Amino acid sequence: MGEEKKILLVHGPNLNMLGKREPAIYGAETLDDVNRQMTDAGKQRGIAITPFQSNHEGAIIDKIQACFGTFQGIIINPGAYTHTSIGIRDAILSISLPVVEIHLSNIYKREPFRHKSMIADVAVGQISGFGVYGYLLALDALTHHLNASVKN
Amino acid sequence: MGEEKKILLVHGPNLNMLGKREPAIYGAETLDDVNRQMTDAGKQRGIAITPFQSNHEGAIIDKIQACFGTFQGIIINPGAYTHTSIGIRDAILSISLPVVEIHLSNIYKREPFRHKSMIADVAVGQISGFGVYGYLLALDALTHHLNASVKN
Amino acid sequence: MGEEKKILLVHGPNLNMLGKREPAIYGAETLDDVNRQMTDAGKQRGIAITPFQSNHEGAIIDKIQACFGTFQGIIINPGAYTHTSIGIRDAILSISLPVVEIHLSNIYKREPFRHKSMIADVAVGQISGFGVYGYLLALDALTHHLNASVKN
Amino acid sequence: MGEEKKILLVHGPNLNMLGKREPAIYGAETLDDVNRQMTDAGKQRGIAITPFQSNHEGAIIDKIQACFGTFQGIIINPGAYTHTSIGIRDAILSISLPVVEIHLSNIYKREPFRHKSMIADVAVGQISGFGVYGYLLALDALTHHLNASVKN
Amino acid sequence: MGEEKKILLVHGPNLNMLGKREPAIYGAETLDDVNRQMTDAGKQRGIAITPFQSNHEGAIIDKIQACFGTFQGIIINPGAYTHTSIGIRDAILSISLPVVEIHLSNIYKREPFRHKSMIADVAVGQISGFGVYGYLLALDALTHHLNASVKN
Amino acid sequence: MGEEKKILLVHGPNLNMLGKREPAIYGAETLDDVNRQMTDAGKQRGIAITPFQSNHEGAIIDKIQACFGTFQGIIINPGAYTHTSIGIRDAILSISLPVVEIHLSNIYKREPFRHKSMIADVAVGQISGFGVYGYLLALDALTHHLNASVKN
Amino acid sequence: MGEEKKILLVHGPNLNMLGKREPAIYGAETLDDVNRQMTDAGKQRGIAITPFQSNHEGAIIDKIQACFGTFQGIIINPGAYTHTSIGIRDAILSISLPVVEIHLSNIYKREPFRHKSMIADVAVGQISGFGVYGYLLALDALTHHLNASVKN
Amino acid sequence: MGEEKKILLVHGPNLNMLGKREPAIYGAETLDDVNRQMTDAGKQRGIAITPFQSNHEGAIIDKIQACFGTFQGIIINPGAYTHTSIGIRDAILSISLPVVEIHLSNIYKREPFRHKSMIADVAVGQISGFGVYGYLLALDALTHHLNASVKN
Amino acid sequence: MGEEKKILLVHGPNLNMLGKREPAIYGAETLDDVNRQMTDAGKQRGIAITPFQSNHEGAIIDKIQACFGTFQGIIINPGAYTHTSIGIRDAILSISLPVVEIHLSNIYKREPFRHKSMIADVAVGQISGFGVYGYLLALDALTHHLNASVKN
Amino acid sequence: MGEEKKILLVHGPNLNMLGKREPAIYGAETLDDVNRQMTDAGKQRGIAITPFQSNHEGAIIDKIQACFGTFQGIIINPGAYTHTSIGIRDAILSISLPVVEIHLSNIYKREPFRHKSMIADVAVGQISGFGVYGYLLALDALTHHLNASVKN
Amino acid sequence: MGEEKKILLVHGPNLNMLGKREPAIYGAETLDDVNRQMTDAGKQRGIAITPFQSNHEGAIIDKIQACFGTFQGIIINPGAYTHTSIGIRDAILSISLPVVEIHLSNIYKREPFRHKSMIADVAVGQISGFGVYGYLLALDALTHHLNASVKN
Amino acid sequence: MGEEKKILLVHGPNLNMLGKREPAIYGAETLDDVNRQMTDAGKQRGIAITPFQSNHEGAIIDKIQACFGTFQGIIINPGAYTHTSIGIRDAILSISLPVVEIHLSNIYKREPFRHKSMIADVAVGQISGFGVYGYLLALDALTHHLNASVKN
Repeated sequence: MGEEKKILLVHGPNLNMLGKREPAIYGAETLDDVNRQMTDAGKQRGIAITPFQSNHEGAIIDKIQACFGTFQGIIINPGAYTHTSIGIRDAILSISLPVVEIHLSNIYKREPFRHKSMIADVAVGQISGFGVYGYLLALDALTHHLNASVKN
Repeated sequence: MGEEKKILLVHGPNLNMLGKREPAIYGAETLDDVNRQMTDAGKQRGIAITPFQSNHEGAIIDKIQACFGTFQGIIINPGAYTHTSIGIRDAILSISLPVVEIHLSNIYKREPFRHKSMIADVAVGQISGFGVYGYLLALDALTHHLNASVKN
Repeated sequence: MGEEKKILLVHGPNLNMLGKREPAIYGAETLDDVNRQMTDAGKQRGIAITPFQSNHEGAIIDKIQACFGTFQGIIINPGAYTHTSIGIRDAILSISLPVVEIHLSNIYKREPFRHKSMIADVAVGQISGFGVYGYLLALDALTHHLNASVKN
Repeated sequence: MGEEKKILLVHGPNLNMLGKREPAIYGAETLDDVNRQMTDAGKQRGIAITPFQSNHEGAIIDKIQACFGTFQGIIINPGAYTHTSIGIRDAILSISLPVVEIHLSNIYKREPFRHKSMIADVAVGQISGFGVYGYLLALDALTHHLNASVKN
Repeated sequence: MGEEKKILLVHGPNLNMLGKREPAIYGAETLDDVNRQMTDAGKQRGIAITPFQSNHEGAIIDKIQACFGTFQGIIINPGAYTHTSIGIRDAILSISLPVVEIHLSNIYKREPFRHKSMIADVAVGQISGFGVYGYLLALDALTHHLNASVKN
Repeated sequence: MGEEKKILLVHGPNLNMLGKREPAIYGAETLDDVNRQMTDAGKQRGIAITPFQSNHEGAIIDKIQACFGTFQGIIINPGAYTHTSIGIRDAILSISLPVVEIHLSNIYKREPFRHKSMIADVAVGQISGFGVYGYLLALDALTHHLNASVKN
Repeated sequence: MGEEKKILLVHGPNLNMLGKREPAIYGAETLDDVNRQMTDAGKQRGIAITPFQSNHEGAIIDKIQACFGTFQGIIINPGAYTHTSIGIRDAILSISLPVVEIHLSNIYKREPFRHKSMIADVAVGQISGFGVYGYLLALDALTHHLNASVKN
Repeated sequence: MGEEKKILLVHGPNLNMLGKREPAIYGAETLDDVNRQMTDAGKQRGIAITPFQSNHEGAIIDKIQACFGTFQGIIINPGAYTHTSIGIRDAILSISLPVVEIHLSNIYKREPFRHKSMIADVAVGQISGFGVYGYLLALDALTHHLNASVKN
Repeated sequence: MGEEKKILLVHGPNLNMLGKREPAIYGAETLDDVNRQMTDAGKQRGIAITPFQSNHEGAIIDKIQACFGTFQGIIINPGAYTHTSIGIRDAILSISLPVVEIHLSNIYKREPFRHKSMIADVAVGQISGFGVYGYLLALDALTHHLNASVKN
Repeated sequence: MGEEKKILLVHGPNLNMLGKREPAIYGAETLDDVNRQMTDAGKQRGIAITPFQSNHEGAIIDKIQACFGTFQGIIINPGAYTHTSIGIRDAILSISLPVVEIHLSNIYKREPFRHKSMIADVAVGQISGFGVYGYLLALDALTHHLNASVKN
Repeated sequence: MGEEKKILLVHGPNLNMLGKREPAIYGAETLDDVNRQMTDAGKQRGIAITPFQSNHEGAIIDKIQACFGTFQGIIINPGAYTHTSIGIRDAILSISLPVVEIHLSNIYKREPFRHKSMIADVAVGQISGFGVYGYLLALDALTHHLNASVKN
Repeated sequence: MGEEKKILLVHGPNLNMLGKREPAIYGAETLDDVNRQMTDAGKQRGIAITPFQSNHEGAIIDKIQACFGTFQGIIINPGAYTHTSIGIRDAILSISLPVVEIHLSNIYKREPFRHKSMIADVAVGQISGFGVYGYLLALDALTHHLNASVKN
């Protein structure tokens, strides 16, 4: 725990439109706002957060693989790929790092095809429905998980 | 916000066995431990938390209804009733209070019949998989939700 | 037909919130109002109506069983238990009395899980969608059914 | 309410066989008996009832459309078309009149394909299982619905 | 191509209510308006268009069969029969003429039972969601198809 | 058995196109040919056969009902209505006459929606796949059934 | 057609119990009776019929294969194997002979698992529900099929 | 094995109606009769049996939990809760005692919703269809299981 | 009851590998051990038990049929054929003898395709999960059933 | 309407193979041919068309997002991504521009997995089955839609 | 590896028709050709191959069981039993030998019921679609597997 | 056959992690090892193998298309895209080259969503479960297929 931990923060497709897209569902904050809040909150907890957004499934897989051996955990909002990407699921399995899944909206209030996550059962846990604040909850959840693991 | 808020903390069936039952999945803390942590954490946030546990679906419905007009929100781990109780769902709808759903284990790693929640789409959001720490996340999530609502 | 008939009027979970809960769907009359109208209407037809409400599946089963040998019929709005309770269904089968099922709202306009009734095929018939007035229709239906049976 | 209301009473396919067909299920009264009872009961309530029976889906659609602008409501037993006719459903939607759906037998006691109604969710409500007496209940239900609408 | 082509324009059940029925979905133009636009547009392309509307599945089948040997193609909006009529499908197969299927509304935005067409895979193609203008698109599509076939 | 028996021979939608439509599947004989063969074969067996074809579901229902009390049995090829018509099924039930179902093509070799018959379980039996010759088999089957019933 | 044709008559499992087993469904004739009627009827048509019964799926496959090159067709009542045997289906495909499928009872009136035949779509046609008489219909159907093929 | 074993005998909803309810299915013995036979049979085997019946799912869960640490096994006929109660399933898991599931009637001969047990895969085994005698079989099965476990 | 009863004991495919195959699931006793225990236990009850094992579905059907008229009941562990054999089901139906179904392992703890039995609803009852001891329970169950039938 | 409108024309995966790939289904014209026809047709209507093709889901999402604020509409043939891409669906939702979906082949004539579109219900409408000519129909449809919107 | 290994080569039902049956799918080589090639190829690798073909599920189970203790592995083409035989699956499990599953045709190009294998998940691996050459691939695969196991 | 053949070897997402990821399932060899073995084995057979790995679906489609006209075949392990990519399927169809599908693990032993391949029915055949050695089998299979095609 003496050394700074490194966490990857992955935003999936269309999350770069945050603040522009469907504000009734997702709120007015932009992705830059979110990343700034998260890196600040990380610093307060001695954690360096690397934000990453892509609309490309392959680019997200590349990035997750690149964590191998240098990062301690991942917070991911896989966006639309939540429901279809076996590739992101396999990338998570391949690096053996704890992952927290987060969704801005309550996915269980939306179309049925959004109720199934390909990621949920390979993640530590899932947080859904608390808007941008959910990212901070995810950070707390992952920090707590990493500390608990260290103790054991 | 000047006045103390009141939150009901509902634990569904078999959660009274916490610490005794399947510790590999649920950990060694008892329900009393959880309730003590939660009431303490509540006090720090100016929130009075009323814990309640029952194995009876009807008793949980009674308790939720009783919140009407006196409580500001509910944190609920509906346990086994998560997946079957339309009655608890209807009780939540009937009192028009924000509800946060929380599960100790990652329900998406367990039997298929535990993947479906009758509560999720009438709750603000859902937190699953972070063990006892998830209750604290739920408290943060609900507090944040209540404060955000007050501001608007 | 010389003697007064006795009918049990069962209200399932959350119906005690009637008039308070989702008035856009269920109207402003309270359950007490409904029970008063029904006992009055019963008197006019020479029928003693015993109203009963519970949020507990077990309590409803207990009550239905208690009709055995002393009541002539049941009007039941099983609320949320309509869609899941095999126990209430079995209780109805066990006492061999005619049952009329009634729903305030049109259950076919609501969520798909409300379209299936575990009670419908062990009842004489079903009335759905006419609000509080449906109880009076149910009373007429059951009265007519009892009289027709007597004649045959 | 000063003026006489007009209600269309639609009987779907094979209901002209009433009294001849499967009396164990449907009773011995003929469709003429039913229509006579209904027009009489209508008169007592200041309502002119126009009975109509056809085995032709198209003819039933034609008739429902013809109500537009001159009738105040419809009582319909769509018979076999209950379970398959999107055309009758669309006709009901096109005329914006309140419709009460009625079935002689308890459709939930019969073959699974009779459990689904294409009409139920565009009707005010549904009455099923009370034999010919169900028509009188439907008339009361529709009359009550029309009067309630007038008051509001 | 020297001779005038003949095209049947079939409107299924309830399309005679166009302009009267659910204008928010279908617009304010009547079926007569549509037929006039289509016959005019046909004339400009040297095509005689015969409009036909019926609420009767059998009548539509009769009419489609009657095209055999004298018409060159069909534009059909089968309305409610789109989703259930194997008979209209078989009639199309029996006459071996190119058929263009058209829907006023976007059927994929509506109830799930409207997403399936029994006609689509025996038609040349399908146009859905462009309101009354879709008929003109269908005419262009069929004209182009007939000309292309002639060339080959 | 002294008196001549009367059998109705029903041909459903599009069977009037027989000989013109998809000859690879249905052969070159016309419906008139079939009817002539059947009435001849009927005469040889002392049976008067009344052929009837319609594309209208309602007309077929009307015709089946009209057999009541004057005919001894029905041979029916319900065509496209085989798979969807509860109305024809109910008409058969309403007249309590033995019915033989026949299909020209082997319906189990065709689209999945043709594998399900709404008629099969209310018929005496089903014959499928033997082309026009199947009608003669159906006549033999029904004749044998009627004679066997008489004997018992 | 100068030479005598040879037809294999296959009876599947439990058909050797015919006449002993569930006479209400299958009648009182034994399998020997059926085979005698069939060989007699064959002789009248210049056809040599070889009856075969087995409770063993493998033995039925062996027998069907043995027809290859020496028989002209098969009549088969596959009994319980109708619904599950891909092996019998493949055997039929492997010998390229016309097959007529026959069932004593109307399989569509029985348990749902009897509604699906693995044989039907590789047979010429299917006859079901006419009891023992169905075998004679099958013989006529196969004879007619063989003669028709010869003519073409 | 020197000490007396304690076994809980749980009867679910409506089993208190035994002997009164549907005797054609369940026989004429009352629940008191069953309990007397079982406690007698237990005594002969050196086992103290505590009978318990409730119509309340929650009460059954409470009772099962109360076995923890003082009982050696459970015989349960969960009645209607067999098919829906995840709560009873979880209670069984929470106490880590061997459970034998028993049903009076053969549940596989009844409605499809009775074919699925939520308890079966967390029990040692299941006995179904032998009426009241099944309880004695269950006692033998559980006794044998407990003795076998002791030996190992 | 004076005469000795005869019971057939059928073991399905792979049960001859008992004691060799997957001992963690099935235990170390061989099939010969089981048969010896069963014939001994039979003798004590005045019952002659004929054991039979085969890997051939047809051979099992043959054997069951051969019981007709000489045996009084059957105990069967159909092994893999439990889940697929309509032929064994039909054989049981054809001989009208009481059958008890038994499984060594708890089939509800294993692969989903083992949860469905084609035999269960034509048997008196089912016993599953008690290992080799289950055979003795089955013998008790069948003996009790036969004695009870004799008394009535 | 004075200013030139800008429309994005998106071609999904493998459409760059047009003219080379499966010409029997897709015709001989290349994608360059299509783009040239479309830009020409656009010019005639005062519309600047920007063609874009990619095999990368992410690149298509990027491009659609880039339309935001500068384009007035999109014509899209999402190719294989039609049936699986929630990401393209979300991108369309995020930019709030009218979209017309077009398919060269009739997708309802092809494999079942091509019958479902993830785009259709967020598009204005869908055109399918008219080959390359369908692009021109799509342009007309979108132009008409844009003009109609301007008028209102 | 000093000693010669023994491998059983199992061919399921209808594979004895190889070379005679559907040569367009299966090629012209006979089963004897295949067995000769395989025994030759085995010799070159120091492996004795015992070919076996049967149309009887039970005979295949018998043969697989007989490998126990004397053979080192099995190559199996279960033919039609691939998709239904739990008995062959159980036999494979009972002998604890490595099994390679092979299919001549690509089973994924054929009827849907051939896409599911009951054997695949208890085999080492599966080879499908390479015709007779697939047997040699299977031999290489099994040889490699056995050698790899020896080394570890 | 005089000229060297060119084969593309495609590895899908996460296969670059081979040797690092889940070695219990996939073994310790890296992708470079695999590619070296394959190019060596190719040289021995006069085949130039071009290895390619990408986590991007679009990049794999691009690469497959680029084979058109210059390569003779493809060996592909589509990894996670096996189960979802219609785009890769379409790319394979567009270039009309023989493709062999290979999986390291036995996909039928893993999660249900891995049992379905979108590629299998457009490939020559499939090899699954033999680890890295499966690539050599695939090379043999494709080589044999290419040689066989040349001969015909």
